[in-house]
Amino acid sequence: MEKALFHIKRNYVSFIELIVREKGVLFVSKKTLIEAFKNTSYQLVGHGNRNVQVLKEVFEKIDGYVESDIYGTGKVIENFQAKIASFLGKEEAVFFPSGTMAQQIALRIWCDERDVQAVAYHPLSHLEIHEEDGLRKLHGITPILLAEKDRVIELEDVKKLEDDIACLLLELPQREIGGQLPSFETLEDISKYCKDNGIKLHLDGARLYEILPYYEKSAEEICALFDSVYISFYKGIGGIAGAILAGPKDFIQESKVWKRRHGGDLISLYPYILSADYNFDLRLHKMKQYYENAKELAELYNSVEMITTKPLVPVSNMFHVHIDLPKRELEPLLVELFEKTGIGLTSHLKDVTDEACYYEVSIGDNYPLVPKDQLQKALNELHEKIQTTKGE
Amino acid sequence: MEKALFHIKRNYVSFIELIVREKGVLFVSKKTLIEAFKNTSYQLVGHGNRNVQVLKEVFEKIDGYVESDIYGTGKVIENFQAKIASFLGKEEAVFFPSGTMAQQIALRIWCDERDVQAVAYHPLSHLEIHEEDGLRKLHGITPILLAEKDRVIELEDVKKLEDDIACLLLELPQREIGGQLPSFETLEDISKYCKDNGIKLHLDGARLYEILPYYEKSAEEICALFDSVYISFYKGIGGIAGAILAGPKDFIQESKVWKRRHGGDLISLYPYILSADYNFDLRLHKMKQYYENAKELAELYNSVEMITTKPLVPVSNMFHVHIDLPKRELEPLLVELFEKTGIGLTSHLKDVTDEACYYEVSIGDNYPLVPKDQLQKALNELHEKIQTTKGE
Repeated sequence: MEKALFHIKRNYVSFIELIVREKGVLFVSKKTLIEAFKNTSYQLVGHGNRNVQVLKEVFEKIDGYVESDIYGTGKVIENFQAKIASFLGKEEAVFFPSGTMAQQIALRIWCDERDVQAVAYHPLSHLEIHEEDGLRKLHGITPILLAEKDRVIELEDVKKLEDDIACLLLELPQREIGGQLPSFETLEDISKYCKDNGIKLHLDGARLYEILPYYEKSAEEICALFDSVYISFYKGIGGIAGAILAGPKDFIQESKVWKRRHGGDLISLYPYILSADYNFDLRLHKMKQYYENAKELAELYNSVEMITTKPLVPVSNMFHVHIDLPKRELEPLLVELFEKTGIGLTSHLKDVTDEACYYEVSIGDNYPLVPKDQLQKALNELHEKIQTTKGE
Repeated sequence: MEKALFHIKRNYVSFIELIVREKGVLFVSKKTLIEAFKNTSYQLVGHGNRNVQVLKEVFEKIDGYVESDIYGTGKVIENFQAKIASFLGKEEAVFFPSGTMAQQIALRIWCDERDVQAVAYHPLSHLEIHEEDGLRKLHGITPILLAEKDRVIELEDVKKLEDDIACLLLELPQREIGGQLPSFETLEDISKYCKDNGIKLHLDGARLYEILPYYEKSAEEICALFDSVYISFYKGIGGIAGAILAGPKDFIQESKVWKRRHGGDLISLYPYILSADYNFDLRLHKMKQYYENAKELAELYNSVEMITTKPLVPVSNMFHVHIDLPKRELEPLLVELFEKTGIGLTSHLKDVTDEACYYEVSIGDNYPLVPKDQLQKALNELHEKIQTTKGE
């Protein structure tokens, strides 16, 4: 019976079945990884639940008489745009409902300016894998994929480009490979090369804040290497949604026209803007702490056999945890682990091969709350579980 | 001196100068129409100030543990979409941050389906005058403008179309001409003609709720004539922002892919969704009252010489007030009137010709609060002011 149940369990990829006989009645409990994660007392990643409380906390402190922005005008939006433009050291900035919209528009403007409908970016760029081909289908722009998937773009990749491009987009850190970064010298070299060759350089800085401690640079110093910059307010910052695009005045004025075309010039964006502003002030100064925490946790993970982090030593608040088990085998182990230890490691696994999977770790306010001894016990237990499964 | 000041005043279009000599000091007070309007005790139009209180009121009643929608999934968004799909009598519905995005996408899908990159709509359609040519520049779709600017589209206009179109868009009511409507029989005839000729019929129903009392039909009965429907939640409903697109299942599934391409598939749309839901329940049943109020107020306006409403008898909660004075002359009169009577008629004027201007009236929760005797006095005073100015 136990053996049979075990095989049933193996066949469920997205959830596990815990079957318990009690007082002669058969109870069937299905718990997904995300449910088990949400039920834990401590979570290693994130800032906490993305529930309505995130909004309520912001607006409890804001006076009801504060006026809404109206189609991109008004103090609420103008003040925040000016504040972030100054933080990034750019002439002007505009608030967008999403980074998807902001970045496509940035690339479109640079392409139109040179009348070259081609750009280059990493094969695992957000534009390539998460936007349903919006750049091609809405803007008719052809992207050229630079560098291999498992490493960041280097100067040599840019130099080897055979086709003419209007703009090069760099994502710092490169999220889909664990948040890797090129050296600051490489950035300087690429920036100079682009300038010399009439190529605009755009920064996908969704996680720009998180790399400042590693580079030991200000946002302004990094952005000075780029013609235009996008940053996000719901990732490291923990806001509800929204993005800023910053750059030269003409570029930003033009981006407002495209924002309207895209349907992003909403009558009121203040729910996102005020939340972005509140959480920016709340968390910007904690980025160094998140970075140190990430290095500490990566070291703990790497001390466990059959577990490796990528990068081995994080360069931001994020990294990937690679485990030598397929997702379908690791998932039930993690659900059991979370339920037993009360510590949640992740809510989402991705297969690498048939033999290995990984998950993303992004450190935020939650990590320091986890008792270290319980964390160590949970990792030991994880090690045992992996060994047992591998040994079968 | 007075004469000189009067001429200076005439030269200011967007604000007036009130110059008062007091204790030998010259005070210059500039008040725009919108500022004067906001300072009034009673306002004839709208639901009240679009300030942060609109959001606070909604979220004070919502539990902090309610989970955010995540990229178009989750109870908050799915339940609301199902509720509105049912209200409109359509198979499925999807929530969009804006109507601009929803409608361009609807037209794109219908165009792609027939492989005909042309649609038809009214020359004063939102797509034609408020979207910076998004339909052409993002989707490569050519719009054919039907009917003269000052009237609604009739069956004959559609029959006379020489070019092949994939879709006809009707806006009910036609906002930019005072919210005029075709007869319900015309709608039925156009719907039948389109069906017989392979033309999809799309409803720009931003103000759909507001026309139900005039047609004496349910939303479902009107939407049954259309293949796809867009409705708004911040106009008559008074939400913060947001829109629903509804139609057949395949169409809606496809629209979600385009929503991602446009950058509208935000990680969290709940600030708009929960506000839309709250205000939908709060105001849907008041549409008949708004309509009756609009007819009453239009009659009051029409009893004043040199003032005419368009339409003469409203067919929804909205109409236009046309006055035989240019905007630059009416604006200072209105500022004075608002300050003296405490009653705000409008916050925004538009020129028709060099001799006449108009403003939009959209009735909401504010109107019943205005004391009728004070309203009558304000209109009498307006009449006198116009006469004086005309007589000069």
